Amino acid sequence: MPVQGFGVHTSMWAMIWTPDAAEAAVAAAVDHKLDFVEVAMPDPATIDAAHTKALLEKSNLQAVASLGLPQRAWASARPEAAIDFLKAAIDKTAEFGGKALSGVIYGGIGERTGYPPTEGEYDNVTRAMQAAARHARTKGIQLGIEPVNRYENHLINTGWQAVEMIERIGADNIFVHLDTYHMNIEEKGAANGILAARDHLKYIHLSESDRGTPGYGTCGWDEIYAALAAIGFKGGLAMESFINMPPDFAHGLAVWRPVAKSMEEVMGKGLPFLRNKAEQYGLIR
Amino acid sequence: MPVQGFGVHTSMWAMIWTPDAAEAAVAAAVDHKLDFVEVAMPDPATIDAAHTKALLEKSNLQAVASLGLPQRAWASARPEAAIDFLKAAIDKTAEFGGKALSGVIYGGIGERTGYPPTEGEYDNVTRAMQAAARHARTKGIQLGIEPVNRYENHLINTGWQAVEMIERIGADNIFVHLDTYHMNIEEKGAANGILAARDHLKYIHLSESDRGTPGYGTCGWDEIYAALAAIGFKGGLAMESFINMPPDFAHGLAVWRPVAKSMEEVMGKGLPFLRNKAEQYGLIR
Amino acid sequence: MPVQGFGVHTSMWAMIWTPDAAEAAVAAAVDHKLDFVEVAMPDPATIDAAHTKALLEKSNLQAVASLGLPQRAWASARPEAAIDFLKAAIDKTAEFGGKALSGVIYGGIGERTGYPPTEGEYDNVTRAMQAAARHARTKGIQLGIEPVNRYENHLINTGWQAVEMIERIGADNIFVHLDTYHMNIEEKGAANGILAARDHLKYIHLSESDRGTPGYGTCGWDEIYAALAAIGFKGGLAMESFINMPPDFAHGLAVWRPVAKSMEEVMGKGLPFLRNKAEQYGLIR
Amino acid sequence: MPVQGFGVHTSMWAMIWTPDAAEAAVAAAVDHKLDFVEVAMPDPATIDAAHTKALLEKSNLQAVASLGLPQRAWASARPEAAIDFLKAAIDKTAEFGGKALSGVIYGGIGERTGYPPTEGEYDNVTRAMQAAARHARTKGIQLGIEPVNRYENHLINTGWQAVEMIERIGADNIFVHLDTYHMNIEEKGAANGILAARDHLKYIHLSESDRGTPGYGTCGWDEIYAALAAIGFKGGLAMESFINMPPDFAHGLAVWRPVAKSMEEVMGKGLPFLRNKAEQYGLIR
Repeated sequence: MPVQGFGVHTSMWAMIWTPDAAEAAVAAAVDHKLDFVEVAMPDPATIDAAHTKALLEKSNLQAVASLGLPQRAWASARPEAAIDFLKAAIDKTAEFGGKALSGVIYGGIGERTGYPPTEGEYDNVTRAMQAAARHARTKGIQLGIEPVNRYENHLINTGWQAVEMIERIGADNIFVHLDTYHMNIEEKGAANGILAARDHLKYIHLSESDRGTPGYGTCGWDEIYAALAAIGFKGGLAMESFINMPPDFAHGLAVWRPVAKSMEEVMGKGLPFLRNKAEQYGLIR
Repeated sequence: MPVQGFGVHTSMWAMIWTPDAAEAAVAAAVDHKLDFVEVAMPDPATIDAAHTKALLEKSNLQAVASLGLPQRAWASARPEAAIDFLKAAIDKTAEFGGKALSGVIYGGIGERTGYPPTEGEYDNVTRAMQAAARHARTKGIQLGIEPVNRYENHLINTGWQAVEMIERIGADNIFVHLDTYHMNIEEKGAANGILAARDHLKYIHLSESDRGTPGYGTCGWDEIYAALAAIGFKGGLAMESFINMPPDFAHGLAVWRPVAKSMEEVMGKGLPFLRNKAEQYGLIR
Repeated sequence: MPVQGFGVHTSMWAMIWTPDAAEAAVAAAVDHKLDFVEVAMPDPATIDAAHTKALLEKSNLQAVASLGLPQRAWASARPEAAIDFLKAAIDKTAEFGGKALSGVIYGGIGERTGYPPTEGEYDNVTRAMQAAARHARTKGIQLGIEPVNRYENHLINTGWQAVEMIERIGADNIFVHLDTYHMNIEEKGAANGILAARDHLKYIHLSESDRGTPGYGTCGWDEIYAALAAIGFKGGLAMESFINMPPDFAHGLAVWRPVAKSMEEVMGKGLPFLRNKAEQYGLIR
Repeated sequence: MPVQGFGVHTSMWAMIWTPDAAEAAVAAAVDHKLDFVEVAMPDPATIDAAHTKALLEKSNLQAVASLGLPQRAWASARPEAAIDFLKAAIDKTAEFGGKALSGVIYGGIGERTGYPPTEGEYDNVTRAMQAAARHARTKGIQLGIEPVNRYENHLINTGWQAVEMIERIGADNIFVHLDTYHMNIEEKGAANGILAARDHLKYIHLSESDRGTPGYGTCGWDEIYAALAAIGFKGGLAMESFINMPPDFAHGLAVWRPVAKSMEEVMGKGLPFLRNKAEQYGLIR
């Protein structure tokens, strides 16, 4: 497993991972007794890896990095650019002590051609992922593929599509990273993506149906946790909520209104809700 | 109520409402003992109203028309063009004997500026809706406003936003038209959009969480039907599923794969599922 | 409404309402900022009404009393004994400042003849309830009828049966008192009892499917709360859990194992869960 | 597995398994294309085994027998009587070609002492089960232990209690037989009994929360089926509904009113509902 236990996507505190933001986010993660943080890394070059590494070590926190590719490096159309981008991201992840690079690493958040995916697009993605996986292995990094909903990307929307892509890539350091928000739109039943991806699932975003406060939406949390328990899930559980998005991110994520009352509600009610359920199902202690 | 009982969005049979398509769709609707059909009318000019009117009368079927505005007539930016487009659509609806024009009549399916909605956009939409409502009243037509999810439009995503818009418009022939697929993404609980829109709700799309076969996804159907029963809902219940989309429509709706096994599954299993539940909750006999 | 806001059945702290137990329970209720307490009153004669009255007034707490009839006073077979018992219970409730006497006031917890209810049994119950209601009116007390599951009583198991009984009794100071634990067994859908009893519903027990920690079982809480919001429920919401039963009570309630990890779990996790949801649905502030 | 595929508890057609009842039930099972039937066998001596055997073979149906012990043979108090009763039942099951004897074979439906179970009671049950299992092995019969709710028996109410009993017995021809109706009352989440019993689970009753028409109650069917899929369940899925009970059986099962509109509703709507879901989750073809 790249990481284990319960963590939070640091979008809660900072979409831009400056040293100051990192200090604040890590302090909050420690306060909330988290096991790991997920560092959003849309622009790897800007991250001060040495600073983050020291911070994580001091705080005894595990970390993963996540991103979506910028349009100039969408793997479906520009596999070479994607490979270059991913190599840099993998290097940066390794430098700051992260264990995995995950997310929409195969394309863009908001990437849609207006047509169903083509074999040519999948071939390009496969090639880019193979190269990235080879490079990641040399750095001890695992790669995660996150299916996202039909509006955010047309290539990989479901757990079984992620598994197909992983089998196509044929590397052993790539896993499936699910997200309950996307599953709620794409999967036939709250547990189905988990069942489909079971052998490859190592990481999951716990995000409510409207990306607001967990426990306040339409996600079938008992069904989700029961399926995780049933497959013997041992990976990282990461709460994700997007309530205060800078315009650049709001665009791709289509967040046009505050989807939660406040960050206090998300951290004070949503986080305990998710943790209590995870404990109930024996996924954390 | 514009229509009552149980109907189907004719996208099941035909996205382009040619006379041949109309014949086939109406025959299927009769076979399935439906009370009404929803005619997709993206291009009102192309509809043979006299033919449809005769067909509906012969078959004793009620009808509503639905559409999303073309980009050249998005009300937020081009209210005058929207008014012209809607007047023509209202006229055509009246000509073929429809009772209401509903859907994303306030904007486009796929309309997003990348920014939260502005007061200026809402002002334009309000003005266009007021003019359309005045015209519709002269034709005996009601207008329905359908909130859609954040990716399909940035203006009206929830039941309460639709109510706010209706109060802003101030006409008495505009109602809220909900859709369970969009509610599953946007509302805080399966029933919440229904509670928020209760006084204005006259029409609802019953569409599964992945737009596939109803009963096979993540929608909380008991919660939805119980809320409809609780508010004394008397309007039209319309099944909607998008499994065979022509590319033009797939684009806006972001349907990249078959979301149901077959049309037979949707009509043979999904439709009875929805009807049985509607009977259980006393919404139809 | 007899009481309003959020309360707790004092079985959490004391099944036998001695002065010491009352002090402890009321102190705990105040600590948890409850609006009211439900005092279990299986034996009205043993209650020190003056002491309880003073305690409640000092603590600014509302109260209701609840009971099941002892076998010697089951109304179906011994209506006169039931009337006597209920009159004493009503008097005691009024003396300590309670607003309602509720629960299985029409029979026993564990009353079953082994046969479906007969008209004769219902006639006897009706007669006893009419007399009790007349007496209760003179004391300013309302009576509540709680349907319980098929194993605890064979007479009134569902919301609609309680409504039928109330219509039969024909008094205006009798209401329906539902319980989510029993509804989970008896009603067709989590919301159905609420829909059936809507015009008469003034009090509800929020009790998990196994009578353990709320939020940890199979009850459909969003559906329940949405239905309460939809009918405009303004009555009392009372958490109930039975984790430490003296043998006498365990017998009737069939509690053979600890159904929650601890009282701390019920009060520290279950109570906030129920309150957060009640706030989300606008039922409390 | 004792049986596989989809079957029905023959209480749908006959609680008393006379030759005529058997003919009718088996004909109905064939009409509904079932894979197996569950024969209720409260009184083994009265069953015409040769007739049933011929009927099942002609119809190509698998079968299991089920029962609850009569009070004179409750294993907790009268283990020797239980052993004698079970041996006769095992013999009869083998004679008519059944593969398993299952249900409340460890006690009575309605057995309650009014106190929590004692070690002495469990010791007696263990001894009886060990003897029955030895005898069953000589006949090629498997035994199934069905946890039932707290009101029907105080000894084994949950999946984990059944597993504990099986480990105590130490035989390899005993399995867990769950029932969704009882799970809905006793387990912490719809899937939990399945997770707890996963290594021993070979048979499951699919019964709605009120024992009426499946799909019309509060059971979390997607969660249940997802958990079965997740553990790789390969055993028998048996629909159970009790709508027309002779008084003797109504007593133990506490069925006081018709819990479904009609047998037609159960067979015409409930059965397809359960089968469609089982197909959706890959549990049957």
